[in-house]
Amino acid sequence: MNFTINKSEVVFHGKVFDVQIDEIKYNGSGNTVPRQVAVHPGGAVSVPVKPDGKIVMVTQFRYPFKEVLLELPAGKLDKGEDPQICASRELTEETGYTAQKISRLGKIFTSPGFCSEVLHIYLAEDLIPGRHAREEGEEGMEVVELSLEDIDEKIKNGKIVDAKTICGITMYRLNTERRR
Amino acid sequence: MNFTINKSEVVFHGKVFDVQIDEIKYNGSGNTVPRQVAVHPGGAVSVPVKPDGKIVMVTQFRYPFKEVLLELPAGKLDKGEDPQICASRELTEETGYTAQKISRLGKIFTSPGFCSEVLHIYLAEDLIPGRHAREEGEEGMEVVELSLEDIDEKIKNGKIVDAKTICGITMYRLNTERRR
Repeated sequence: MNFTINKSEVVFHGKVFDVQIDEIKYNGSGNTVPRQVAVHPGGAVSVPVKPDGKIVMVTQFRYPFKEVLLELPAGKLDKGEDPQICASRELTEETGYTAQKISRLGKIFTSPGFCSEVLHIYLAEDLIPGRHAREEGEEGMEVVELSLEDIDEKIKNGKIVDAKTICGITMYRLNTERRR
Repeated sequence: MNFTINKSEVVFHGKVFDVQIDEIKYNGSGNTVPRQVAVHPGGAVSVPVKPDGKIVMVTQFRYPFKEVLLELPAGKLDKGEDPQICASRELTEETGYTAQKISRLGKIFTSPGFCSEVLHIYLAEDLIPGRHAREEGEEGMEVVELSLEDIDEKIKNGKIVDAKTICGITMYRLNTERRR
């Protein structure tokens, strides 16, 4: 790094994210510039695959868009939580399934220009059904099971627009070398 | 929507994003809850494809991670800017290439749980080389041209972690039906 951080201050403490403003000084030019970062605890995503190849997904009401999106199961890391534990926990809470086998596919940075969010992505297999902990509440979370072909079609026609979901499916496909 | 927005306030005005806090009241339960949103102007991404199938990418220093990432060319929308114009503009600024043909692949929501960022994704073809407007500065933006096979490998081994890049490549592949 060819800059120095002169100062760093959290100017907003939020429920999901904080806002931090750093002042950095470039060593070469001596210029001083502010850097504003949305500081996020990160999260974990699972790609839950059933024996017939279908992927278990959920519908989520997303407040920033006032829309219900079709997504892979995912959630924020609790403080100090292992991402794999988080992926398993969120899978069960959101879908009822428990994964007997879980393996890492990788990580993504959702919006690295201004946000520190990292999502860790896991393949979840050998799924045992159960009752999901989150009741179908006012916002109507539903479990949906789709083939890879159906998911591809929904990405193509704009019915799936959630970045972590498109990334998770891609990483699953690349890692298992499954192709249509 | 089965809730009412009681009030809405921007509590942080930033350079890249604002923070808005809404108070919503569920019509059913009557419960009142806050919703904190990172409000972002959105942006545009291009998937620039050369006649030999290679994809033009750039390296970007990303402050939230203090890392240099390998990404598709992209940038924020100027106020009122058409996303396709933005995609073309950022392509030229970042790589020097001008696209004679540009077509829409779709859109993604980068982090829909808390952030309103939408990225519009375009396929850029018939590229004419030129000099890129952004000098290789202190943060070393470089232009890199990679085959789809190399990109897949870099997604698999964690050398490409930027969500919009993984999504853009996936949407390109699905739309052109190109496969390895």
